Amino acid sequence: MNRIITIGRQFGSGGREFGRRLAEELGIGYYDKEIITEIAKSTSMSEEYIKSFIEGKGQKLMPITIGHSFAHIDNFQVDNPAYKQIQSIYQAQSEIICSLAEKTDCVIIGRCADFILKDYDPLRVFVYASIDSRVSRCMAKKRENENFNEKEMRKHILNLDKDRGKYYEFYTDQKWGDKENYDLMLNLSYKDIPRVVKRIAPWFTV
Amino acid sequence: MNRIITIGRQFGSGGREFGRRLAEELGIGYYDKEIITEIAKSTSMSEEYIKSFIEGKGQKLMPITIGHSFAHIDNFQVDNPAYKQIQSIYQAQSEIICSLAEKTDCVIIGRCADFILKDYDPLRVFVYASIDSRVSRCMAKKRENENFNEKEMRKHILNLDKDRGKYYEFYTDQKWGDKENYDLMLNLSYKDIPRVVKRIAPWFTV
Repeated sequence: MNRIITIGRQFGSGGREFGRRLAEELGIGYYDKEIITEIAKSTSMSEEYIKSFIEGKGQKLMPITIGHSFAHIDNFQVDNPAYKQIQSIYQAQSEIICSLAEKTDCVIIGRCADFILKDYDPLRVFVYASIDSRVSRCMAKKRENENFNEKEMRKHILNLDKDRGKYYEFYTDQKWGDKENYDLMLNLSYKDIPRVVKRIAPWFTV
Repeated sequence: MNRIITIGRQFGSGGREFGRRLAEELGIGYYDKEIITEIAKSTSMSEEYIKSFIEGKGQKLMPITIGHSFAHIDNFQVDNPAYKQIQSIYQAQSEIICSLAEKTDCVIIGRCADFILKDYDPLRVFVYASIDSRVSRCMAKKRENENFNEKEMRKHILNLDKDRGKYYEFYTDQKWGDKENYDLMLNLSYKDIPRVVKRIAPWFTV
């Protein structure tokens, strides 16, 4: 069985950079946005459209109740075309993630991969950081056209976390970021990520 | 500054064995029950007596409110000789933990060392495991004179965790086992601890 590392991460924690560098260091596959490209290929939807569903629009349609059982979902939602669409995106995403795990050793970022791949015995990592550290990281990395001040950035980060949590909980019936659902939890507050990766990589190679 | 690794752990998770083996593997100091021996030396109390205060009797005197501010504690408690005694045990313990951290690289198990040593920039590890894994580990390791069945063992474990949590929260104003208070969280459910240590030790040596 291939060696699979799944990485869940709080927004702005540096989890994506950590995962990318870890995959480089280990010389194994790395899948993040590539998954969206693959979904687009396997469906008739554009990458932009899929992204908007996964990262925002989709969550708005989800019931507040945690749990993906249809018992929680009223008829309106089940019949809602947008709801059907997020279900088919999730289905395509699950198939693609499983086929990646079949193909090669890899790091997979987000997208409930820890849950989808539970039969593949992945090493389930969750990366987090203090909110101050995340605000400071995001302010340093923000694009020129982003006008958030620190207060707005903090709100933006917490909102994105809320969406991620809701998405994860909806499909997995598990609480996002709860230690019970991961093998390793890493606090990257104010950490030098390349240095952390150099330190931690040997652990994954034995 | 010495390299300090503090290990908080859920009861039965294997955190103590993990810490002992990690210290051996790294060739650095290991302090666990040794701290109680040192407290006994520096006070007029017996090891047994100190242990009973730290691991049970002490918690019973603590107010339910989290926070060590005296505002939460009524006069009865402040004047209570037993209360004074747990305070002086904690004081002695803090001094001993700081002097160990001054002396040598080391692993320190429990005893709020992550909080007491915050100025020493320790690597703060928390070890946990599923309740089923912990029950199974404790049943396999139980002494001949312990008659717990599985159900009783589960209750015993959860009670001990509750005491540990209360003790930690009382002195630190932080929630025990919350990821924000640690650098690394390790899930040892059903894990082969010697193997985990061999895999993870290189990380601590870079």
